[in-house]
Amino acid sequence: MNPDISRERENASFNPEILTNILDGGAEKTRRRREIESLVIGDPDFQHEDLNFLSRSERYDAAVRKSAQMILKLREYGISDPEEIYSYKSIVRGVFQEPFGVHYVMFIPTLNSQCTAEQHKKWIPLAESFHVLGTYAQTELGHGTHIRGLETTATYDPSTQEFVLNSPTISSIKWWPGGLGKTSNHAIVLAQLYTQGKCHGLHAFITPIRCMDTHMPLPGVVVGDIGPKFGFDEVDNGYLKLENVRIPRENMLMKYAKVEPDGTYVKPPSDKLTYGTMVFIRSMIVGESARALSKSCTIAIRYSAVRHQSELRPGEPEPQILDYQTQQYKLFPLLATAFAFHFVGQYMSKTYHRISGDINQGDFSELPELHALSAGLKAFTTWVANAGIELCRMSCGGHGYSRCSSLPDIYVTFTPTCTYEGENTVMMLQTARFLVKSYKQARAGQQLTGIVSYLNEPHSRIQPHSVSSQPTVVNINDLASLVEAYKFRAAKLVEMAAKNLQAELQHSKSNEDAWNNNSIDLVRASDAHCHYVVVKLFAAKLSEIGDTAVHSVLSTLALLYALHGVALNSGDFLQAGLLTVPQLAQISKRLKGLLSELRPNAVALVDAFDYRDEMLNSALGRYDGNVYENMFEWAKRSPLNHTEVHESHHKYLKPLRSKL
Amino acid sequence: MNPDISRERENASFNPEILTNILDGGAEKTRRRREIESLVIGDPDFQHEDLNFLSRSERYDAAVRKSAQMILKLREYGISDPEEIYSYKSIVRGVFQEPFGVHYVMFIPTLNSQCTAEQHKKWIPLAESFHVLGTYAQTELGHGTHIRGLETTATYDPSTQEFVLNSPTISSIKWWPGGLGKTSNHAIVLAQLYTQGKCHGLHAFITPIRCMDTHMPLPGVVVGDIGPKFGFDEVDNGYLKLENVRIPRENMLMKYAKVEPDGTYVKPPSDKLTYGTMVFIRSMIVGESARALSKSCTIAIRYSAVRHQSELRPGEPEPQILDYQTQQYKLFPLLATAFAFHFVGQYMSKTYHRISGDINQGDFSELPELHALSAGLKAFTTWVANAGIELCRMSCGGHGYSRCSSLPDIYVTFTPTCTYEGENTVMMLQTARFLVKSYKQARAGQQLTGIVSYLNEPHSRIQPHSVSSQPTVVNINDLASLVEAYKFRAAKLVEMAAKNLQAELQHSKSNEDAWNNNSIDLVRASDAHCHYVVVKLFAAKLSEIGDTAVHSVLSTLALLYALHGVALNSGDFLQAGLLTVPQLAQISKRLKGLLSELRPNAVALVDAFDYRDEMLNSALGRYDGNVYENMFEWAKRSPLNHTEVHESHHKYLKPLRSKL
Repeated sequence: MNPDISRERENASFNPEILTNILDGGAEKTRRRREIESLVIGDPDFQHEDLNFLSRSERYDAAVRKSAQMILKLREYGISDPEEIYSYKSIVRGVFQEPFGVHYVMFIPTLNSQCTAEQHKKWIPLAESFHVLGTYAQTELGHGTHIRGLETTATYDPSTQEFVLNSPTISSIKWWPGGLGKTSNHAIVLAQLYTQGKCHGLHAFITPIRCMDTHMPLPGVVVGDIGPKFGFDEVDNGYLKLENVRIPRENMLMKYAKVEPDGTYVKPPSDKLTYGTMVFIRSMIVGESARALSKSCTIAIRYSAVRHQSELRPGEPEPQILDYQTQQYKLFPLLATAFAFHFVGQYMSKTYHRISGDINQGDFSELPELHALSAGLKAFTTWVANAGIELCRMSCGGHGYSRCSSLPDIYVTFTPTCTYEGENTVMMLQTARFLVKSYKQARAGQQLTGIVSYLNEPHSRIQPHSVSSQPTVVNINDLASLVEAYKFRAAKLVEMAAKNLQAELQHSKSNEDAWNNNSIDLVRASDAHCHYVVVKLFAAKLSEIGDTAVHSVLSTLALLYALHGVALNSGDFLQAGLLTVPQLAQISKRLKGLLSELRPNAVALVDAFDYRDEMLNSALGRYDGNVYENMFEWAKRSPLNHTEVHESHHKYLKPLRSKL
Repeated sequence: MNPDISRERENASFNPEILTNILDGGAEKTRRRREIESLVIGDPDFQHEDLNFLSRSERYDAAVRKSAQMILKLREYGISDPEEIYSYKSIVRGVFQEPFGVHYVMFIPTLNSQCTAEQHKKWIPLAESFHVLGTYAQTELGHGTHIRGLETTATYDPSTQEFVLNSPTISSIKWWPGGLGKTSNHAIVLAQLYTQGKCHGLHAFITPIRCMDTHMPLPGVVVGDIGPKFGFDEVDNGYLKLENVRIPRENMLMKYAKVEPDGTYVKPPSDKLTYGTMVFIRSMIVGESARALSKSCTIAIRYSAVRHQSELRPGEPEPQILDYQTQQYKLFPLLATAFAFHFVGQYMSKTYHRISGDINQGDFSELPELHALSAGLKAFTTWVANAGIELCRMSCGGHGYSRCSSLPDIYVTFTPTCTYEGENTVMMLQTARFLVKSYKQARAGQQLTGIVSYLNEPHSRIQPHSVSSQPTVVNINDLASLVEAYKFRAAKLVEMAAKNLQAELQHSKSNEDAWNNNSIDLVRASDAHCHYVVVKLFAAKLSEIGDTAVHSVLSTLALLYALHGVALNSGDFLQAGLLTVPQLAQISKRLKGLLSELRPNAVALVDAFDYRDEMLNSALGRYDGNVYENMFEWAKRSPLNHTEVHESHHKYLKPLRSKL
């Protein structure tokens, strides 16, 4: 054990195990999580060469192998609880992605929710036995966010009772679905349904794409891998071009909409039915933001505790880089953010389950709020975590660029969350739509409930020019007061956006133009709303914590999170009259104080995230702090070192010399 | 040609060719640049399969091959002007890196500047004929920024007149030098010189590491590749462990310091001699920031002109995504930044050449300012460009993640500039040191000259609490007024940092502690200083532009750049009393106006950067806008598509089914 890092642990003021239990949701959950982790980590079938040393084809091969093993092991161990399966898989995966991911996350759930009883009976056993391996083919080369714009067609032919699927243009080629390129033999294809000469919009069709026996593409199917990406080397995201591919009428998912044998179209009873899955996935992504950021903080903070560099005082030994104020200022606000997002993730998961229960009982009242919240928080947390991972990486100096740090992998694996399951700017605008609507309702005298209830409050309706007469409300040492300040800021920005929108309507040709011409303000309002929610939830979490020492250190983190956000957005708070200019200097001073307070607990705080070395897979982030020895061992295994002299020396360098 | 992108070009208000000439520094330079580009692009020897489809070993192989060809071609074409060589190479390289880079950029220049006449005569011909292929081995596993902390030792043995080189610890292993792993047969090793029982600090030693005939590592030399990184796959960054490696006394670079045959150490006359190269490289990096960002903007803006998505108005066709205000708000400030950095790069290069001339004539007076400016601007521009590339990538939706967009490559190739040649935070603090010193000189009544002369002005010495009594100076529609506002902001932040430093000295144990305890403020002051310099140089450039239409569009960009920076840092401007709260709303409105003004010129502005398709290497950024066809063609060539059925299907999936 590196002596620096041991000393850090000795100096901590709290017991990390208690904090770990809080993060897991209880000591029993911690125990069970560790038990599952040990199953994977001790399993020789899951050992593998560092993926960074393999070619893409080898990585794909390794991923398929491990995915297949995982399925067998889960059955062997009898793990069937969905959360435990999720947890088991995330350990196996580490930083590698699963080519079967879409089969589980989209293909089977879509069958479950949109099959008729008969279809269910046919397809679910095939999917669960992996005879059918499926993906979900929605996005096309030219179409992503706006799914109504998809061009793939499914035209019903009553003479044979088949649908004829086509990709009529280059831009209609299905593009991006995970597992589509090489792995899947079926796809649920989203296509414009034509029957009896009329288009009825998008519907889903179970489409065989490869022979279930030979795995060769079926006639009319052009399918393949879309090529290398930024990360996700193990996954065969694919393309699919359909040329008069015929499927039986029964392959349309018909639980809701139907096409009768004669081609008569029967409308679905409601169009809000796919809301749920989207909301669920977005909520899960909030938790992913917390995990990616907490892993990155673990690596950067542990490394900063063992890395010595430069001189603080002449003649003295080089200090740990964690002692530099600038390093603390990079890492500790991110550490606070990781905790904040973790608690927000817990809240989202709890709220989702509560509201799903209501929905199952026919109560849809909270769905719009949950939808708006999950959209906004998905965007807010992924953007922040995305930039945060890179800040962690760059805080490790040169070594952060090495693949052995794991930070490049964490980044490329995480960054797509900013785009998939709803592009972030689009998500922010969806939340803004809910906020503006709520604001208008409040103005019209309606009493709002839930998280937007602050828009009822009179201070949110003040005129833009009267803010200076408002009393300054914020006490910079009091978290509750800061929560209020974030609330007023959000209210102010929602109001400004709503008013600008109203004003713009005088000039614009349409509502849509007015909306577009104010979209910068609308995104800003959503961002402030989400920021308020995060600060509020972090503060609320503190009241649940009994252990004094843990409460104290988490309170420091929460205050740091809140004040750092005020400092970064000081223009907003000054503009809203919530801060005075002299307070800015006080905040700056207080922030420095909080960094010093956190310094002795930094390593213990990341220890509390409880990532085993095998899961971090980072030479810099090792629990024992023995960084350099392990970097050296890792480097020796680099494929370029398999021979002493690379063939290029003989092929190019020797001839070059003779020509000069 | 895609009709959308043709229409964009027809609608531009200016002639891009005139702007291209301004960027190149004259029409003749544009002509010559294009001539050189054609030499490379038309050369069948430089055609190659997309590097993204190759393994790392294949990429390294291809890079060595092309580097060797390049050397022969340069001689064949008689290109010898250093700027033209740089330009030729940067075209050949495109997004690939050169394993010989350090041989040119560090090894030969160091020989040139630190060899005695005799050493020069021996080593330069060997290096120029590539019999000696060299690298520069400075950083060690445990030591980067603080070079005095390096641990490698060179102990003089008078009995044999040799130095004995050793890596005494794991942390002393040389780590990171480009071309060290497999390519080089010599390294200039920085080591602590011991002679006659005394350490004389760091000196440079020409160290043979591989046999010049067999290329095998020499006895006592442990050398290899440090393993895969975030980018730079083509380069064999290496490690080097020295175990009692003996080199002749004459291999110490002895132009300045010397060791006599008997072991007597002779001190160098001055220690400021290596200043120059560092300043030069940092100045060049400012230009790299402009290039990386302008390439990214070219890709993102052209793609945004051909990509259609969602609905602005119901029933109408999907609009170009460049029509969304949020998309403009992401891309146009970055476009303005790319131009700003380009002009700053031109200024740095000009200033470097002017001051080098002075230095050659013994006038060192401007060196400290140039040093501070190049350090700060290197950090400022690389941080901004680094985040900007990712913003461009994410503005392309899903397709930005594909390697065919080239954006992931631009990012991973560029991001190390934030760390190498001076870690950015360290650079900012170096600039801060110069600013604080200058501020103190001004306070002491000394008249400052050059770029910090603003610290002379009385308004920079106001008390923190009296700012509210200052008149608001900024006219948000006037660039000159905005330049003044940036100047006052910088002055204010330098003053605040200097005063906080002064105050801290009352409490701190030492100057060094006080410095560390204020380093957040110091970085902020440097950042504001650099921001001022960039705005000022952009504004100054406008006065040189004769063409009315180009002048008009560049003025709009400059105003956008300045106002966007004010909006992002509004807290600072409010705090300094340079802005009023109502002005913030005006700025926000004006920014939206500027986005609309720029919209029709966006494509023509990126066209003016004049990157040929072969250099962008991006399916999304193509000049003809035919994005989707080219993505599809590219994807078909993905190695995973070489077989219809991947072997993993037979190896793992078939057996899995039988076990379930």
